[in-house]
Amino acid sequence: MKMKYSFTLLLLIFVFAFGNAQNSILGFSEKSAAEQQKLEKSFEEKLDATNIDNWMQKMAAEPHWVGTKFGEENAKWIRDQFKSWGYDAKIETYQILFPYPIERELELIGPTTYKAKLTAVPVEGDSFTSQGDALLPSYNAFSKDGDVEGELVFVNYGIPKDYEELEKLGISVKGKIVIAKYQGSWRGIKPKLAAENGAIGCIIYSDPQDDGYGQGDVYPEGAFKNKTGVQRGSVMDMPTYPGDVLTPGYGATKDAKRLDREEAPTITKIPVLPISYEDAQPLLAALDGPVAPESWRGGLPITYHIGPGPAKVHLKLKFDWKLVPAHNVIATMKGTEFPDQWVMRGNHHDAWVHGANDPISGMVALMEEARAVGELAKKGQKPKRTLVYCAWDAEEPGLIGSTEWVEDHKKELQEKVVAYINTDGNGRGFLGVGGSHSLQAMVSEVAGDVTDPQTNVSVKERRIARDLVNGGGDSFELYALGSGSDYTPFIQHAGIASLNLGFGGENSGGEYHTIYDTYPHYKRFKDPEFAYGVALANTAGRITLRLANADIIPLDFDQWYKTVSGYLDEIMEETSKMRSSVEKHNKLMDRNAFELASDPRENIKKPEREEPVPYLDFSPLQNVLSDLKTTIEQYDMIRLNELPEAKKNMLNTMLMDAEKTLTSEKGLPRRPWFKHQIYAPGFYTGYGVKTLPGVREAVEQKNWTEAKEQINILSETLSNFNSHLKKIVSSLK
Amino acid sequence: MKMKYSFTLLLLIFVFAFGNAQNSILGFSEKSAAEQQKLEKSFEEKLDATNIDNWMQKMAAEPHWVGTKFGEENAKWIRDQFKSWGYDAKIETYQILFPYPIERELELIGPTTYKAKLTAVPVEGDSFTSQGDALLPSYNAFSKDGDVEGELVFVNYGIPKDYEELEKLGISVKGKIVIAKYQGSWRGIKPKLAAENGAIGCIIYSDPQDDGYGQGDVYPEGAFKNKTGVQRGSVMDMPTYPGDVLTPGYGATKDAKRLDREEAPTITKIPVLPISYEDAQPLLAALDGPVAPESWRGGLPITYHIGPGPAKVHLKLKFDWKLVPAHNVIATMKGTEFPDQWVMRGNHHDAWVHGANDPISGMVALMEEARAVGELAKKGQKPKRTLVYCAWDAEEPGLIGSTEWVEDHKKELQEKVVAYINTDGNGRGFLGVGGSHSLQAMVSEVAGDVTDPQTNVSVKERRIARDLVNGGGDSFELYALGSGSDYTPFIQHAGIASLNLGFGGENSGGEYHTIYDTYPHYKRFKDPEFAYGVALANTAGRITLRLANADIIPLDFDQWYKTVSGYLDEIMEETSKMRSSVEKHNKLMDRNAFELASDPRENIKKPEREEPVPYLDFSPLQNVLSDLKTTIEQYDMIRLNELPEAKKNMLNTMLMDAEKTLTSEKGLPRRPWFKHQIYAPGFYTGYGVKTLPGVREAVEQKNWTEAKEQINILSETLSNFNSHLKKIVSSLK
Repeated sequence: MKMKYSFTLLLLIFVFAFGNAQNSILGFSEKSAAEQQKLEKSFEEKLDATNIDNWMQKMAAEPHWVGTKFGEENAKWIRDQFKSWGYDAKIETYQILFPYPIERELELIGPTTYKAKLTAVPVEGDSFTSQGDALLPSYNAFSKDGDVEGELVFVNYGIPKDYEELEKLGISVKGKIVIAKYQGSWRGIKPKLAAENGAIGCIIYSDPQDDGYGQGDVYPEGAFKNKTGVQRGSVMDMPTYPGDVLTPGYGATKDAKRLDREEAPTITKIPVLPISYEDAQPLLAALDGPVAPESWRGGLPITYHIGPGPAKVHLKLKFDWKLVPAHNVIATMKGTEFPDQWVMRGNHHDAWVHGANDPISGMVALMEEARAVGELAKKGQKPKRTLVYCAWDAEEPGLIGSTEWVEDHKKELQEKVVAYINTDGNGRGFLGVGGSHSLQAMVSEVAGDVTDPQTNVSVKERRIARDLVNGGGDSFELYALGSGSDYTPFIQHAGIASLNLGFGGENSGGEYHTIYDTYPHYKRFKDPEFAYGVALANTAGRITLRLANADIIPLDFDQWYKTVSGYLDEIMEETSKMRSSVEKHNKLMDRNAFELASDPRENIKKPEREEPVPYLDFSPLQNVLSDLKTTIEQYDMIRLNELPEAKKNMLNTMLMDAEKTLTSEKGLPRRPWFKHQIYAPGFYTGYGVKTLPGVREAVEQKNWTEAKEQINILSETLSNFNSHLKKIVSSLK
Repeated sequence: MKMKYSFTLLLLIFVFAFGNAQNSILGFSEKSAAEQQKLEKSFEEKLDATNIDNWMQKMAAEPHWVGTKFGEENAKWIRDQFKSWGYDAKIETYQILFPYPIERELELIGPTTYKAKLTAVPVEGDSFTSQGDALLPSYNAFSKDGDVEGELVFVNYGIPKDYEELEKLGISVKGKIVIAKYQGSWRGIKPKLAAENGAIGCIIYSDPQDDGYGQGDVYPEGAFKNKTGVQRGSVMDMPTYPGDVLTPGYGATKDAKRLDREEAPTITKIPVLPISYEDAQPLLAALDGPVAPESWRGGLPITYHIGPGPAKVHLKLKFDWKLVPAHNVIATMKGTEFPDQWVMRGNHHDAWVHGANDPISGMVALMEEARAVGELAKKGQKPKRTLVYCAWDAEEPGLIGSTEWVEDHKKELQEKVVAYINTDGNGRGFLGVGGSHSLQAMVSEVAGDVTDPQTNVSVKERRIARDLVNGGGDSFELYALGSGSDYTPFIQHAGIASLNLGFGGENSGGEYHTIYDTYPHYKRFKDPEFAYGVALANTAGRITLRLANADIIPLDFDQWYKTVSGYLDEIMEETSKMRSSVEKHNKLMDRNAFELASDPRENIKKPEREEPVPYLDFSPLQNVLSDLKTTIEQYDMIRLNELPEAKKNMLNTMLMDAEKTLTSEKGLPRRPWFKHQIYAPGFYTGYGVKTLPGVREAVEQKNWTEAKEQINILSETLSNFNSHLKKIVSSLK
């Protein structure tokens, strides 16, 4: 008892002293912290919004999707810029499959007729929208070819609960063509689920309530989607694996073995086409059948019916499927002390059309950051660890450039990379950061050191203010990473600690993946003075420089533990709720309540009894988390800054391996490419994250056998993580 | 201890025996219950849907608002029908002020122009909509005359929280004309609040999301409001007092003293006009200024802006203000045993246009009920207590017919009326009943005895099934009465126990107060076979007959107590929540969180510190409710059916007075007409009920001094109620 008390006291004194140190930075001794702060100040002073502005104008001047001449020119120019800043820069090229649309036809063929226009119109004040044939036609990449005809069914967002609702209403999409609203999930989920439910075609449109005049004035009067705007985008089955569809798990080098296109599992099973709300309205208006549930209805001036029919449509799509070169720019600045420890930064450079916002606004901030770092280096302030700046190609069609590169270099990366820091576009507003929770404490410190350009408080304080006003908590937290940008191969596949960051919340608009994502649109509605471009360079640059120069790699497992044990609590609570819900459902079945409560004139299908939810044994997870808590407390007791140099170096090597012990080589069920056991994109949400994904998705799918298996697999993984941390603790004694 | 135990045991045995009695009906001995059940069965067998159908066709053949020839003919015909069924029937007429619109002009005069059409179009398949000039023009009764011009401001529903939002945005309506959506409150609140906030005119429109194509197919394809439909309706300040605006608190007899129109407090302070969504769209589209908050936006294909301006409108309204006769039909069947104990039934007969649904569907069910009761009487099965059936005139402009009659006969009614049972239209679906909670147990029993025409379970079971499916509880409960129909003068002013009932939930549509509320619309979309018309006659008739024939008037105070103490719990919880919310708000103010969280480019006004919410002393209410609980338990222990006849009669007389002890002669603050201390329409919600209104509204308005006063007034009232019940208990010993 006495012992415990004195330990706690000691800890308090330590924390108090440490917390009060003027120059404290996680991972730095007091002396190094002072130097680092000076360095970061010089770095910040070198950042210049004019560069960001000029470079955006240059790089977003023409459309530049993967395989275009302008895209290749951008890549070469980026490489040359990096060279001029003192980096060792090169282009690494992969040959990837990329479909270009050569036929797109969509017609309403009954009971009335309408031929979809499928083209967005040029707008006044934005000459970029007048580039005509140079603009990429609107389509969904990795839709299969197809020529189908069938009755139309409106499926809301086309996500699992929408199909449950259709089932209740006794409506099947088998043999039909579905029309789904954008949003509610990542777009690729819509054709995937439609096909699983027997549909033969899929149309996706942007409803004006979610993405059009319902959100605000439309372009060019305002920032939002006008009636002709169409969101392009990939529908590749990325939750199975991202990257080149023909080379799963390995680099798409020139001579790589390739799958036949017909057997590529991540190309859709049915043809898919995105359309505007102008084109969608006649189709939806021609539907009859039940009126859509209230939450399904959108902003068109019609009554939304579900169908099927009498609306009948014809959809024809043909693509030119060819291999195109994807050019990744890789720029390296060798570390002075630890050249084999890499801190990586990346943003993609390819766009669907001009991509002023997505991705150029992030790309140019990364470049300005790299330029300032290069200037410091030229003055002798080189990083201790190696920096690798990347400009990825072919992110838009399916994270292809980064994935192929990671797959190609996986072994080396797993040995050498400390962390990967991703950006992908940027705007005005609040800092948002996702990533590995062992990095949360470090990021929170950095966010406290960067000043918000509009309010002059730290970006951390501003972000927390917004969270508080919205009912959130009083701390800076990382969101968990699902998918949707180039961090995916790093964290999900290679098990490398990763971050993804950007500013936003005051830059909404409807330009995403349309011909309206241009420089004039960005200047008017996103970050007019590029002040947040500078803030992003400042934030990401400080994170990069801290990881590069830290005495001890700044990982914190205390916040990791709180977050991950919180995930387990969520799943256990979710399971209890499902159990109560099933019990309640079956009680209502017993008294025929559903039938009595429903309108006999509506043909609502009587629901079925549900299988009771068993009690799952979560104790293996609870036990290993309890062990982890003890280990982490022991780690936290060590005075890291007082370790001898050799121990510090050994510690760093071991810390670099920590995130990888959170992966399992077998990967997740039905998608072995995804190795990480804490974070994954949802199999039925797409980009949306599922934490502790093996267990969580098994529970959500009510697959209790798999849930039990996954509890054991996750326990083993966490146990490996615990062993690794224990090894660290014991080796430091 | 032993004593207590044996008491409980005794009670259990009693309840068990009573609950199992085959023929148990609340208020009836076993013998009388058997007779009553036979009687009700004969009554039910006499009900005939054909009458209901035919009478609706007759009474809804032409428009019949108060003062029309056709309305007078209906009244006379109703009287004659009652006479033919054996009732002593007469017409009682009041002279009431009623405005008829002679000029209606609304124009957008800048920056573009548009002249509002202000007319609904005839539709195919419904010849009633083609009656042209015979149809009442669309307007809001008791708008003042006016000729105003000003900038337009969109105020969402125009309810208190919308003005709070405008305040935050720094937008004032002073000197402006507001445009508000229908719904969100009773319509009369909109011009009242607009005027309080300085507006000079008010336009109300039906947004298609709430009431148009957003709900379903529009008339004549479907039941919902088409683009030309306009909801008429009164905007008289009924929460201050309903009834004739010139004779507050007394009958508008021919020679009654009348206020000058200029000083009548319940006529609006500014001109008000209701319009269609076709007429609203050009006005709303011409607005600029901030985009409306997401929850404000409706279903028109535009971006909703708030203004003010640049849209400028001109609104001109002129009415013919004249006295017209309001004809109430009063039909009496004298009770055989207790002629001075009246059970009253009522429904209004006036409509805005044809009113097939509102009010005729309820009126004809009442008539069929009365006819069947008359038939029984002719065969010798007369009621023990007197029945009074009423057909009210001038309900639509402000509950005028019923209010004048109640004011005129108040003393007699307070002495003689056992209860008033109101209906007002009817449809297909689920039984809903509101009213005095001492009547809940009786109504629940009746609902258990009426069979639902679609499912063949009791209407009670079906209603509970729906509640359960929607997450509600497993018992049949009365909602509390606010205002909106003719029960208001009975319960709120005279303190007479009241009920309001009807079926619905499977009969939605947009015909309310439009030219589309016709027989063809009703037949297609409401209650096609008039099966629920019969169900309503059956339910209301059984309630009437039970009240008329009960040995002991079937009041139950146990459920009353649970409900009312629940209201107090709500208010106390609400006060706590307000306190936490203010504390949180002020904490956020201290750290400047609101300013940091808001977009500096939007001109959001910095919120102000709020006054802390004091702890209120609710103990007087808690103590009197605790006393009441004891008294009610004592009352429940008495074997009422075993009382000698004289005691029963005395008990009945005292029970008739019970509800009146829940009133306070001083009435509610700023509206002395409203005497009831448990239920009132909200001063700022209109029809929406406020329970324990004196205390609740003071708390909601943060008027702590008044809250303390009202706690004392309510405690006194509840204490009077307790004394009355105690007197009953002691007199029965």
